Amino acid sequence: MDSSLNKPARIYLDHAATGWPKSEAVYRAVETELREHGAAAGRGAYGEALHSNAVVEEVRRLAARLVSSSATAAHAAVAGESVVLTANGTASLNLAIHGLLRPGDHVVTTAAEHNSVLRPLEWWRSRQGVVVETVPCDASGRVRSEDVLARVNGRTRLVAVVHASNVTGAVQPVEEIAAGLRRGPAAEAMLLCDAAQTAGSLPIGLSELGVDLLAMPGHKGLGGPLGTGLLCLGPRAAEQIEPLMQGGTGSQSDRLEMPTKLPERLESGNLNVPALAGLAAGLRETLERDLEATARQQRDRTVELASRLAELPGIRVISGGELPILSLVLSEFDCREAAAVLDTAFGIEVRAGLHCAPLIHRYLDTAPSGTLRISFAPTTPQSELDQLAEALEEVAAQC
Amino acid sequence: MDSSLNKPARIYLDHAATGWPKSEAVYRAVETELREHGAAAGRGAYGEALHSNAVVEEVRRLAARLVSSSATAAHAAVAGESVVLTANGTASLNLAIHGLLRPGDHVVTTAAEHNSVLRPLEWWRSRQGVVVETVPCDASGRVRSEDVLARVNGRTRLVAVVHASNVTGAVQPVEEIAAGLRRGPAAEAMLLCDAAQTAGSLPIGLSELGVDLLAMPGHKGLGGPLGTGLLCLGPRAAEQIEPLMQGGTGSQSDRLEMPTKLPERLESGNLNVPALAGLAAGLRETLERDLEATARQQRDRTVELASRLAELPGIRVISGGELPILSLVLSEFDCREAAAVLDTAFGIEVRAGLHCAPLIHRYLDTAPSGTLRISFAPTTPQSELDQLAEALEEVAAQC
Repeated sequence: MDSSLNKPARIYLDHAATGWPKSEAVYRAVETELREHGAAAGRGAYGEALHSNAVVEEVRRLAARLVSSSATAAHAAVAGESVVLTANGTASLNLAIHGLLRPGDHVVTTAAEHNSVLRPLEWWRSRQGVVVETVPCDASGRVRSEDVLARVNGRTRLVAVVHASNVTGAVQPVEEIAAGLRRGPAAEAMLLCDAAQTAGSLPIGLSELGVDLLAMPGHKGLGGPLGTGLLCLGPRAAEQIEPLMQGGTGSQSDRLEMPTKLPERLESGNLNVPALAGLAAGLRETLERDLEATARQQRDRTVELASRLAELPGIRVISGGELPILSLVLSEFDCREAAAVLDTAFGIEVRAGLHCAPLIHRYLDTAPSGTLRISFAPTTPQSELDQLAEALEEVAAQC
Repeated sequence: MDSSLNKPARIYLDHAATGWPKSEAVYRAVETELREHGAAAGRGAYGEALHSNAVVEEVRRLAARLVSSSATAAHAAVAGESVVLTANGTASLNLAIHGLLRPGDHVVTTAAEHNSVLRPLEWWRSRQGVVVETVPCDASGRVRSEDVLARVNGRTRLVAVVHASNVTGAVQPVEEIAAGLRRGPAAEAMLLCDAAQTAGSLPIGLSELGVDLLAMPGHKGLGGPLGTGLLCLGPRAAEQIEPLMQGGTGSQSDRLEMPTKLPERLESGNLNVPALAGLAAGLRETLERDLEATARQQRDRTVELASRLAELPGIRVISGGELPILSLVLSEFDCREAAAVLDTAFGIEVRAGLHCAPLIHRYLDTAPSGTLRISFAPTTPQSELDQLAEALEEVAAQC
């Protein structure tokens, strides 16, 4: 499987898929948990089992801090019990959608969503008579809050909006949608936000955004390992959401019904304690970071890279300009071909295609092939972005 | 969190919950994947993304070998595509149950099941009018095949039987149930077997057992890390099972419907590649082991330990005698109290309570407190079992 001979040094620019490398603290946390502890959480009462419980509770506590608003009278802090642990962002979104919808409901969503939202909604549409209205976006992948709100009616049960497009990085007006929703005909509707591309990169206070449910993977901007996901619940969602899976919870084991208490109501089966230990380390680093300053730097780097690439002949750049995610279209190359050249000739790892977001491409004019996506992290050295720009210059010059 | 001062050396006897320690090869596989590779699987086309795909495909190939019968005309080998990867055994069982049942179905199961089967079935019973018949077991936790078959009727859609009790280690007559089911009024019914306690310990050929679906965690007998589970499908189940979650699959991304092809139809979201690299290493070691010889040794050790403990005053031993899982009841101690003494005074880690198997205890006469459960592995040194017996002798002598 190793073909490292004659390969250029690796430049990883696929952070929108998963973050790599992780920090040394994350690696060590996983390794220590695996090698030195290793007990299941939530079951036994011996010391090492309690250690596993402590790892899990620390993740909840840190994640609750991350999504808790600055303590003001208007914004209550999120409790650790309202942080539900899952296997990935998709599992969090499925739990949210399947846990809230009922046959015949009305749902509003956007063309900028990932298949982890669109496909569960399509299941409800095709099997359970749910009406799904999909709001269009503009040529950078942004939706307008008024377009979302215009589709909400008294029967609307759920509004599902991605915080930022995984294709263009365009950030959606979630706060405006939330404010309008609460004043409109469906004030009780649930607002679900997919923070896959923003958790760890932008502020995601549940109350500040005004959302009821915030879903995110642990392995992207939060710096944790693959195998982790979070679903954070506001009070109304916490009351109403039903489990997607049922099973052992290590509590109230004499009952065949799931416990009603959170988080047990929504978590069955063995938690992935080693990966959660890594996520705790990632969350700690995330909380220590100056989020505003990092976001500003990343915005500046993105805008600079976008304008540099836009000057190259035959390259169209599509970018929301707020997050380090850029989509490119090359007039003379299929995006898959360009990705292959970047990998093999330059050691640059980027992704080509639809990025599991099928509907956005008709608005970006990038259907059916999709785009070449560049995504980076605060840890990406500037020299790697320079190498990317030089490599694309060479590629463009070949036309 | 570390309270290692003055603690006796650690004796881990909770292998029925999760295996620990893992082998050095498993640790190294996880660490190498995390540190040196780290790409998402099934999405990108660059070299490291293809490496992740190769890790995933190796798990499928090895697991398919594990559940494939010795190549005979009667027993077809299981294909890698029929091995579905999940986050744990509970997720595998939920996928099986929710993916097959429809409102109004009839189901037969047993009192020896874990809550990961009983609770999803209770959901279908209470919400969707499914009739669930639960077959009693004997005082060691064993069910009789004729009792299962007597409850099957023409409307039976699913028969769910645990391969071995997680409380007593009693192995169920799955082959007899399978053979009878195929000759009875519900020849088309699906037979689901929960191999949580037997995968890696007993032969689990899908065709030899005669089952349609075999669910198992990756982190117990198979030696992999937490965060891994498998659902292996026979041809009829592969045809009929529907996804429990929908989302990005990295394939047919232009469609809002899930792909119909396996395994993508049933797998959404990012796979846990580092843990799967560890599971591949665990599966390799499992396949290299002489399963029959190891099972025989484990049986002998179990029987010897059980008879040694049964001689102690005030201790009742409940054991199927086939797998290294023993339940104890102490006449003078609550099982939780006994577990705490074993941990703090002797460094022995065992579990007390119902073990997420609520119904079996009425047949073992261990309701409502449950049992003290000892579970070990082929890697458990005999000296640790001796220390356990000596510790229990001391505890019993205190009465």
